[in-house]
Amino acid sequence: MNLAFVLRVTSILLIIVCIFMGLSIPVALAYGEVGLIPAFLVPMGASLLFFFVIASATRRSSWRALSIRDSYLFVTLGWLAASAMGALPFVVSGSIPNYVDAFFETMSGFSTTGASILTDIEALPRSILFWRSMTHWLGGMGIVVLTVAIFPLLGIGGVRLMDAEAPGPSVDRITPRLTGTAKILWSIYVLLTVLEIALLLAGGMSLFDAATHTFGTMATGGFSPRNASVGYYRSVYVDTVITMFMVLAGINFTLYFRLAVLRWREVLHDGELRAYLTILAGAILLITVNLVGTAGYSVGKGLRYASFQAASFLTTTGFATADFAAWPAFAQIVMFVLMFIGGCAGSTGGGIKVVRIVMLLKQAITEMRYQLFPRGVFPVHLGGRAVRKNVIYSVYAFVFLYLLSLFAVTAVVASGGYDILSSLTASLACLGNIGPGFGLVGPTANYAHFPQYIKVVLSLAMMTGRLEVYTVLLLLYPSFWKR
Amino acid sequence: MNLAFVLRVTSILLIIVCIFMGLSIPVALAYGEVGLIPAFLVPMGASLLFFFVIASATRRSSWRALSIRDSYLFVTLGWLAASAMGALPFVVSGSIPNYVDAFFETMSGFSTTGASILTDIEALPRSILFWRSMTHWLGGMGIVVLTVAIFPLLGIGGVRLMDAEAPGPSVDRITPRLTGTAKILWSIYVLLTVLEIALLLAGGMSLFDAATHTFGTMATGGFSPRNASVGYYRSVYVDTVITMFMVLAGINFTLYFRLAVLRWREVLHDGELRAYLTILAGAILLITVNLVGTAGYSVGKGLRYASFQAASFLTTTGFATADFAAWPAFAQIVMFVLMFIGGCAGSTGGGIKVVRIVMLLKQAITEMRYQLFPRGVFPVHLGGRAVRKNVIYSVYAFVFLYLLSLFAVTAVVASGGYDILSSLTASLACLGNIGPGFGLVGPTANYAHFPQYIKVVLSLAMMTGRLEVYTVLLLLYPSFWKR
Repeated sequence: MNLAFVLRVTSILLIIVCIFMGLSIPVALAYGEVGLIPAFLVPMGASLLFFFVIASATRRSSWRALSIRDSYLFVTLGWLAASAMGALPFVVSGSIPNYVDAFFETMSGFSTTGASILTDIEALPRSILFWRSMTHWLGGMGIVVLTVAIFPLLGIGGVRLMDAEAPGPSVDRITPRLTGTAKILWSIYVLLTVLEIALLLAGGMSLFDAATHTFGTMATGGFSPRNASVGYYRSVYVDTVITMFMVLAGINFTLYFRLAVLRWREVLHDGELRAYLTILAGAILLITVNLVGTAGYSVGKGLRYASFQAASFLTTTGFATADFAAWPAFAQIVMFVLMFIGGCAGSTGGGIKVVRIVMLLKQAITEMRYQLFPRGVFPVHLGGRAVRKNVIYSVYAFVFLYLLSLFAVTAVVASGGYDILSSLTASLACLGNIGPGFGLVGPTANYAHFPQYIKVVLSLAMMTGRLEVYTVLLLLYPSFWKR
Repeated sequence: MNLAFVLRVTSILLIIVCIFMGLSIPVALAYGEVGLIPAFLVPMGASLLFFFVIASATRRSSWRALSIRDSYLFVTLGWLAASAMGALPFVVSGSIPNYVDAFFETMSGFSTTGASILTDIEALPRSILFWRSMTHWLGGMGIVVLTVAIFPLLGIGGVRLMDAEAPGPSVDRITPRLTGTAKILWSIYVLLTVLEIALLLAGGMSLFDAATHTFGTMATGGFSPRNASVGYYRSVYVDTVITMFMVLAGINFTLYFRLAVLRWREVLHDGELRAYLTILAGAILLITVNLVGTAGYSVGKGLRYASFQAASFLTTTGFATADFAAWPAFAQIVMFVLMFIGGCAGSTGGGIKVVRIVMLLKQAITEMRYQLFPRGVFPVHLGGRAVRKNVIYSVYAFVFLYLLSLFAVTAVVASGGYDILSSLTASLACLGNIGPGFGLVGPTANYAHFPQYIKVVLSLAMMTGRLEVYTVLLLLYPSFWKR
């Protein structure tokens, strides 16, 4: 273990986060919240101090010394440090006086969960709300990926870092150089962000609302500066734009790169994209039929609300335009199932990820064929290529550990006396980085009422889900710490 | 497909079921229910007629012609036919006038689920209640296994038949001859049954109550002739005996054979048995602590009720001695998790089965080691032997198909307007052959209120769970029907 190195990179990561935190200062100036500027300067100063202390206390370690364990440790530590530091503006400004609450809100932001402990969001100052949404945007593409992209000197060992932050089974490298890949991904992200802000502005939204909602959308996060979430605007245009961009944010970003270099055939034949769109269309259809048939919605209205909520849940964004807890049971079950699936690998979406579900489904069907034809040979294909068995193995183990984590977190939440549905969906909403669930964490509720120890465990669940389980669980595995 | 053969064996299976149905006639005589005897004679006569019609219409096919598909088809058809025929006494006697309800109750019996549509069980005649519990006892060890045991001429192809009825990953053959294995298993089953009846009689229970509760226990079924289930007796002795035998019924029966031939070392080192007892002890501990700490139970009382309910849920029996829906949330979550696990392979318990959970856990830990040491070789061991990769594959696919079936059934139940918790746990309780769930299918509720189409789907879910998913799902797989 190269702890000195891990601390050095962590301090660099904090500096990068601070640069983005600094963007809240012009917002504070614009809205006359000058008194809040120290709330941002304090953590920024603390991070700078931390950076210099670490830099002077440790020698500049060779990047080549970066081991697999160092990567895992750094990624987990980096996320914890970013959240611990990112929580300070909330506490210093007095917006969220309790530190655990602030840590929960910040981890919820970085992990793009969108679960909130705020009961009256609109009461908060604009600059604080801006930082809250900014955590989404930073966490969406990954603060580690960002670190890799900005500091070319981190290039060596960067693959492992990116793998540890998003170890999806189909992280294709676009360019031979990792910093190149990270830069391209971030450029696409920035481009889509600018596009959505422009479209929302065109619909008459204020710049502040457009930016914060865009951050929530592109990161598939779900924080809104409005108490009624996107439902506040009561606008078909806003609903449509946000639905569209939620769907775009849930797609593997490398596909946009392929589209840009005119390799559109690969995009059209992408198995995961097809499955993702099929699941989405199926869910929209089922919910619409249920809303029209049981809840008396017109077809147009049903389609609008079903599309928004299905996209919001499948991409694990968590925005709401309706009190879906009051929807008929069947629509709720469809959404409950969507909570398990999540977005595509390489997107900003959370959950188990579509590609894993597709692989497991194909493998399960293959197993059925083996029952009928025990001597046959049936490889599992994905995107025209046979998937190696150890990849499927690893995917299965991921899903198993994911469900195991889900049950463990659920038990902790239930220990506070919460009913099964609330405990289960709160845990699933945090682990899957969705945000809202059902019962006591439904669309009209929030996470304020949980005791502190549950908030801490749910925060860790968000991180575990965002880093795709292995990275965090490995730190709990005794062999990890052995020489 | 050798349909003639499949029909012939199905008709033999019905005759065997009828022999056991005949045992209700002396019960009817003993309790002065002479008017009910036709209710049993009608289906018995119909089965005999069916047997002769099939026997004369088809030639005696060679057993060697039995293909894998024939096995799967026969097992599914056999279970459907047994339930369709076994439902007749309820309908003819007028105890359950609606045929769908009667079919649900019978499939619930044969599949050892124990989910009931009866709102006042004690109002039913004794001979009918006896038949109801008898379906448990027959289904527990498997009606197909019974067929194999009784008709030595079915020996050829029997392995496949037994595999199709209970394709657990560790069905060890005790003797080289399959009929021998089937006979030994049934002998152990009969022996334990006699022992439990004797112990319950010694506790002052009537022969009728002792026999019916024993059938429910040994089959891990859960039907009780009492409205308050085992809670009716308010007896520590009865609770203890039934808890003990539920636990015994959830153990792989081949271990009893090994114990009988003094291979006790193998029993002691059985990985699944250890895991099963560890899970049980852990669940009892957690629930007891929760009941004592939160619900004000004394330690003795907590231990008694926790042991009974944990054993009832882990073994998928479904008996109740308390209204566990009123227990604190944490205890409920523990039980909810137990619903997914189930008994040991080769036991009468349902669910996913302990051995599968153990395999997946070991494999998941192995995958974590591969993350740390990508070039290592870490085989998964079980009972001192390395598990072949394709076995683990098949286990994973099973669990995936199981969860997929669970979500599909849940969606059907929710389409009737039932809330998430009731829909989910009703489906899980049927698919896992448990019986009670939470919400509208809790310990004080039943399945009477569901519309007919949901009852049919839940009946099929019980069968799918009892035959361990593959057998039934294969019939839905198009290739199954192709030449």
